[in-house]
Amino acid sequence: MIVLGIDPGLANLGLGLVEGDVRKAQHLYHVCLTTESAWIMPRRLQYIHEELSRLLAEYRPDAVAIEDQILRKQADVAFKVGQAFGVVQLACAQAGVPVHSYGPMQVKRSLVGTGRAEKEQVIYMVKATLGVRELFNNHAADALALALTHLASAPLQSRAAQLLAR
Amino acid sequence: MIVLGIDPGLANLGLGLVEGDVRKAQHLYHVCLTTESAWIMPRRLQYIHEELSRLLAEYRPDAVAIEDQILRKQADVAFKVGQAFGVVQLACAQAGVPVHSYGPMQVKRSLVGTGRAEKEQVIYMVKATLGVRELFNNHAADALALALTHLASAPLQSRAAQLLAR
Repeated sequence: MIVLGIDPGLANLGLGLVEGDVRKAQHLYHVCLTTESAWIMPRRLQYIHEELSRLLAEYRPDAVAIEDQILRKQADVAFKVGQAFGVVQLACAQAGVPVHSYGPMQVKRSLVGTGRAEKEQVIYMVKATLGVRELFNNHAADALALALTHLASAPLQSRAAQLLAR
Repeated sequence: MIVLGIDPGLANLGLGLVEGDVRKAQHLYHVCLTTESAWIMPRRLQYIHEELSRLLAEYRPDAVAIEDQILRKQADVAFKVGQAFGVVQLACAQAGVPVHSYGPMQVKRSLVGTGRAEKEQVIYMVKATLGVRELFNNHAADALALALTHLASAPLQSRAAQLLAR
């Protein structure tokens, strides 16, 4: 199973691909897409859509794991992030890949064992689990953490679906 | 010159196409795209993107006039509308059509002559200008009003660009 984790954002959008299952996960690729605030909005969105669509076509993930957006207080920030989030979901729908969302607490619990883990602990676990040594971008690390969270919960989810289908 | 006006939204998205210039404007088409809240978000966004892209390909407008989004107080609403707004801008960028934005006051001033006009007056002027009799959807009427606003301001904009280019 190949999972693409996405830490959505407009200026920085983290992408991380992992393959395998909860016992043996392998790092495939990670990147942080950055768009400049000097670019006009349509260009920023088109860049995100193009790069993400290219990645979806190249790796053909079975699922996308995306960070649940916590309601931001500032409406202007929510509006901006919303535009990037919309384009991300569109690209996934066009590629026919189901999107699962996980909150920050779920990711921490899944990787470190407690929802109150520090960010550094999460990054440490991502590196240890995937055997990645290089110090990479935080957004890409978040994306890989999301992908691993989905790998860990996917067997439970499909078991639950089987039970419900009886 | 063909202009596509867009009143952006997630549940209701108004689209209106006009052709001509400020002295003689002709109605080409209008529609209000509606998406159900029961649909999953990727499907709603994909529907908007597909329908809009189809219209852009069919009518090949020279410009898009979109309503400037007034900052909403509620972050959750801003986040939702932002997602639709992002997909709309993406479709325009993909079609290579420039996007111009106008505030509600500009639209009222342009059509009725005062920024404090009532919504009914704007709709009346849209119908009168385009010779459309049928009582149509408010979102589609708003979209046609935006397209007419651009038609009215486009000559001034290009004149200003010429002066600046000297």
